[in-house]
Amino acid sequence: MAEFDLIEILKQRCASRRDDVHLGIGDDAAVVALPAGHELVICTDTLVAGVHFPRETAPADIGWKSLAVNLSDLAAMGASPAWATLALTMPEADAGFVSAFADGFGALAARHDVALIGGDTTRGPLAITVTTHGFVPSGCAIRRKGAQVGDAVFVSGTLGDAAGGLRCLQSIDESGASALMQQKANQELLISRLNRPQPRVAAGIGLRGLASACIDISDGLIADLGHIAAASELGIDIEEECLPGSVALFECFDMNTCRTLQKSGGDDYELAFTIASAKVELMRIAMTELGCQVTQLGRVVARTGVRVFDRNGQHNVSPEKGWEHFT
Amino acid sequence: MAEFDLIEILKQRCASRRDDVHLGIGDDAAVVALPAGHELVICTDTLVAGVHFPRETAPADIGWKSLAVNLSDLAAMGASPAWATLALTMPEADAGFVSAFADGFGALAARHDVALIGGDTTRGPLAITVTTHGFVPSGCAIRRKGAQVGDAVFVSGTLGDAAGGLRCLQSIDESGASALMQQKANQELLISRLNRPQPRVAAGIGLRGLASACIDISDGLIADLGHIAAASELGIDIEEECLPGSVALFECFDMNTCRTLQKSGGDDYELAFTIASAKVELMRIAMTELGCQVTQLGRVVARTGVRVFDRNGQHNVSPEKGWEHFT
Repeated sequence: MAEFDLIEILKQRCASRRDDVHLGIGDDAAVVALPAGHELVICTDTLVAGVHFPRETAPADIGWKSLAVNLSDLAAMGASPAWATLALTMPEADAGFVSAFADGFGALAARHDVALIGGDTTRGPLAITVTTHGFVPSGCAIRRKGAQVGDAVFVSGTLGDAAGGLRCLQSIDESGASALMQQKANQELLISRLNRPQPRVAAGIGLRGLASACIDISDGLIADLGHIAAASELGIDIEEECLPGSVALFECFDMNTCRTLQKSGGDDYELAFTIASAKVELMRIAMTELGCQVTQLGRVVARTGVRVFDRNGQHNVSPEKGWEHFT
Repeated sequence: MAEFDLIEILKQRCASRRDDVHLGIGDDAAVVALPAGHELVICTDTLVAGVHFPRETAPADIGWKSLAVNLSDLAAMGASPAWATLALTMPEADAGFVSAFADGFGALAARHDVALIGGDTTRGPLAITVTTHGFVPSGCAIRRKGAQVGDAVFVSGTLGDAAGGLRCLQSIDESGASALMQQKANQELLISRLNRPQPRVAAGIGLRGLASACIDISDGLIADLGHIAAASELGIDIEEECLPGSVALFECFDMNTCRTLQKSGGDDYELAFTIASAKVELMRIAMTELGCQVTQLGRVVARTGVRVFDRNGQHNVSPEKGWEHFT
């Protein structure tokens, strides 16, 4: 199977017909048009086999996730996604792999009207780099910087599921035991959160003009709130008791483990954001309309760093760190 | 060395101060502005260690080349380069490697006023994916499609040097022998064409409104002319005798080898383009002003495929194919 055949598979499954794509896959570069009065928002993420996903992950899930982690970054900026490029490096020209990968990538792309406009297929150890492009009305991007003292700190959805899913995968591998049926359903739910993250695209767009700062949770809640705190040159205090978790998570692990997963498990791809008190009600209405659960965790404070308070009002001296490469 | 320290090295060396970069490295995504009346041009290329460059290649050369191959694609579209993202995957957090890589990448970025606006650093087998963004006045991108019967076919610079450089590296490795001084200078010149390709950015911009189709030569002349021919649904006839070559190439290899390298050696990153006869004189003046040598190779004809005629007027039945991954 030649490179051009692989590209044809990707093209057929993932190249949507957006009017603003003037030239898509098949030339030296793609040509697209940005709507007037908008800024372009660009991000890149790489997934390496065995590092960012278990090697046994289904190709369709790899395709889905490689786009999802990028769309999540656009969501955190409040951007409307538009176009993606795909750099797919794989050991051999495996049409079956590419076809399944394109199914997963294409399913998520279709859901958010993202056009695959170009890329590169190369031979090498399995790794995927996706670059996504979206846009915001000029001046409306939501940054990590911008939190103000007194702002409320919120998070979308539930925390810790993806990290719980990874633990489930590892324990299934180790024990080989078949769990009870209810337990199995819980595990599958957590694993699907790991393999098929749902980027909070609509919520991110809905937070434009409301959130004062925003980030997506990829490294872990505490680490990512730390990025908002550092960029805003302020601190964040949160209550451990407030951390939202799924029933599946609480049924699969003891409370101590759940709290650890919620605070420092990566790969949640929920949005954490700060917002002025006066805007909270508007935001709650908007998120309810989108069917997006949000939970207040705490407040922005006039110090630095992130503190997590337990039910007794004691805070961790050295809160868990999130995922960091190379350490 | 932590991920954030590596990013800081890259940021300091490669993040230029362009006015249109509204938010650069350090948030979930970058935010940039496109000038009014322009389209955005986007391309992505991956370099894998041991596949696209010898593993022994100097890190600064890898940095240079990873950007150069991308800028060459923008050049082939006639685009003005503006922004790049970098996905750098490497086995360990090696500050020395990243620093040298950033030197090479940054040197070329500075030359073309390209700002590094974001990216990702990950752990894994050495591979680099760069996505570059440029722009063209709306409707002015030069495509592969557009060649007309009777158009002249031109190429910039000289052909075969990079492929010759790769052969030099391989023969130096094998023999370990030290060449004569003149031969050494020739080899070094060819190797520098392999490791430090000069993307034809100014020439590409100069060809806007002149060339009817254009491509950069990455896979090899014949293969890449084949892409223009296929996209334009026409054929191309060229004369082998016309292929431009450097003195260094002709002094390092016999004529037969030179012709093979010129026709099918990849990695030249010269521009091959077609142009209506009426515009050739204007184009020659423009290219002379830019100091860019151009050579006519042949004509666009009303058939399909690429034919290479030798001095006796005989053409190859099956001309050399260029580089294709996975074969």
